[in-house]
Amino acid sequence: MTTKNPIQRFYSIIPAGGVGSRLWPLSRASAPKFLHDLTGSGQTLLQDTFDRLVPFAGSERILVVTGNAHADAVREQIESLSEANLVLESSAKDSTAAIATAAAILMKREPDVIIGSFAADHVITDQKAFEAAVREAIEVAATGKIVTIGIKPTEASVAFGYIKTGDVIDHTAEATAREVVKFVEKPNIARAKKYVDSGNYLWNAGMFIAPAALLLEQLAKSEPAMHEAIMKIAENWDTPDRKAVVASLWPALKKVAIDYSVAEPAAEAGLVAVVPADFEWHDVGDFAAIAELQSQGRKGNLAVLGNAKVLADSSSGILVSDTDRLIALIGVEDIIVVDTPDALLVTTKEHAQRVKSLVDALKATGHSEVL
Amino acid sequence: MTTKNPIQRFYSIIPAGGVGSRLWPLSRASAPKFLHDLTGSGQTLLQDTFDRLVPFAGSERILVVTGNAHADAVREQIESLSEANLVLESSAKDSTAAIATAAAILMKREPDVIIGSFAADHVITDQKAFEAAVREAIEVAATGKIVTIGIKPTEASVAFGYIKTGDVIDHTAEATAREVVKFVEKPNIARAKKYVDSGNYLWNAGMFIAPAALLLEQLAKSEPAMHEAIMKIAENWDTPDRKAVVASLWPALKKVAIDYSVAEPAAEAGLVAVVPADFEWHDVGDFAAIAELQSQGRKGNLAVLGNAKVLADSSSGILVSDTDRLIALIGVEDIIVVDTPDALLVTTKEHAQRVKSLVDALKATGHSEVL
Repeated sequence: MTTKNPIQRFYSIIPAGGVGSRLWPLSRASAPKFLHDLTGSGQTLLQDTFDRLVPFAGSERILVVTGNAHADAVREQIESLSEANLVLESSAKDSTAAIATAAAILMKREPDVIIGSFAADHVITDQKAFEAAVREAIEVAATGKIVTIGIKPTEASVAFGYIKTGDVIDHTAEATAREVVKFVEKPNIARAKKYVDSGNYLWNAGMFIAPAALLLEQLAKSEPAMHEAIMKIAENWDTPDRKAVVASLWPALKKVAIDYSVAEPAAEAGLVAVVPADFEWHDVGDFAAIAELQSQGRKGNLAVLGNAKVLADSSSGILVSDTDRLIALIGVEDIIVVDTPDALLVTTKEHAQRVKSLVDALKATGHSEVL
Repeated sequence: MTTKNPIQRFYSIIPAGGVGSRLWPLSRASAPKFLHDLTGSGQTLLQDTFDRLVPFAGSERILVVTGNAHADAVREQIESLSEANLVLESSAKDSTAAIATAAAILMKREPDVIIGSFAADHVITDQKAFEAAVREAIEVAATGKIVTIGIKPTEASVAFGYIKTGDVIDHTAEATAREVVKFVEKPNIARAKKYVDSGNYLWNAGMFIAPAALLLEQLAKSEPAMHEAIMKIAENWDTPDRKAVVASLWPALKKVAIDYSVAEPAAEAGLVAVVPADFEWHDVGDFAAIAELQSQGRKGNLAVLGNAKVLADSSSGILVSDTDRLIALIGVEDIIVVDTPDALLVTTKEHAQRVKSLVDALKATGHSEVL
């Protein structure tokens, strides 16, 4: 069917969506978290993600899916991105629409393409281990599997979904990939402990590597109407009819996570494999996570992100600044201060998760101008 | 010597100076605390002070001494202030220069004037009790005394100086004025307790009521050079030579508090009396004091000053806003947040006094643009 190496068939997809409510007021509908430098690396999460994928097949084989509203910001942040590699959504439709549409467009251009989908807002620092895992995943995908990367848990986290692993697929020396028995949703703490203690569970980092054809085949089985619409969009994407077809089909697309539409049913069908990996991986869910992550720009026990002039005395926590104001902290411990031009948040690490409910309250009280 | 009633001779002086470092970043060199509404009354401290003094001799007999830099703000805030009642200092020279110059100018215009000096940044809510105390002080001053108002201590505060009281001066029924034995500086806590327990000590609220001639006589004894310069300035104040004389004499004036130059030596000479008063009195020294003071605009246990849109969840303390940004607080207790266009302070009530050292640090690190 194809004479190319698996790696020659590989194409990365970066679905860049999600507002990141827990990172308000830094992360906004107008400037979601992937557009920010949350690690102090000097690059945004999106740029870091892009750079991480270049080694597999070059910068020409990375496609970004994002909302229309972020088109200019993405173009500005990734200068090497061609227009052919930028898929703009007219409205947010969750991960199935984003990833499957990208996969279908790529498959139309290149029928034997193997796609890999990697979220725009994750942090991975061990590039070597990441590359090794993805390269193995690509090899396994080429054998006709949907492959995910499973992170070896370092604690009984309740913040992530888990992957129950089965038998090793290939008993040669280097291969580590296993069958996936099933995906399980975010557990409670007791169950999370059981999972971790068993040694049979990995964190689901939401990365999928698969032949586009196989992924879309699975979608056709579980969401046939969606599959049909997406195939029609892809069919017309690189033609003058794109706009009209998208306008007629996109708005009605179902909002569903790819975990439900593809990963879980494919796992039940025995079509999913997982490459276990033990690199550090963060999904940067809230400001407490950023504080943990932050190693540069520290002032004592205070992590500082952004260009604020900071004067801190006996203070710890994290200060995120999107202004050039002077910020003075005195005697505040484990504090979170997020300073933006039109909104200021002051909370503590302990309450970092509650930022989401605050954003909900802002919606409810008609403060959408700052969301 | 004079046929007027004591109250007909009365003229108020408001020395409006002092940056209020402990109230940074709200209070600045360019906008010191008396120019702000720190009580939520809808008026600034200066306006409140002015209004408090009107009942004695009308708004035409209140003189404000302030720095050149604040002239426009003062004129704007007190529309009824005539230019004759505005004394502008070309540089800050502490309270002796401010009050004695004002007294000398008034005495030149009106030799039998009794002046009363009241700081621009104090808070007094019981107008009736205040008026009663000052009216008695004016009567006593007319008998040839420098009279101060002593506040009955409600706690062993180390933030104020104390006045040791002696005998009652006049044994008629209503009179409460006593001799002042001596003024003592801010004590340590052990000494403060002893003072309060003894019942012989009052807080020094820095108010002085005296015939201008007597006050200046005392200054002539303790600071003759200063007295001479100030008399020359006053002599020329209402003439075309004001500018030249001020330019030649003001810069060399000694910086000394009126407590040292006049009050203490006069007390030693047996010339000072005190009217004990038990109205509530605040010198609004720091943000913790403002939080205590603040009764309006509360959101639960959070005092809010200014026009910020505030969303507070499980938070207490004080929020002072000089911007119209949205401020969200989650789970922060006894917090102090002061939000201004170019600087933000986050601290706690416990550390409110440390703001002054922060301002010193800002000076030292060359951040004078925000001071």
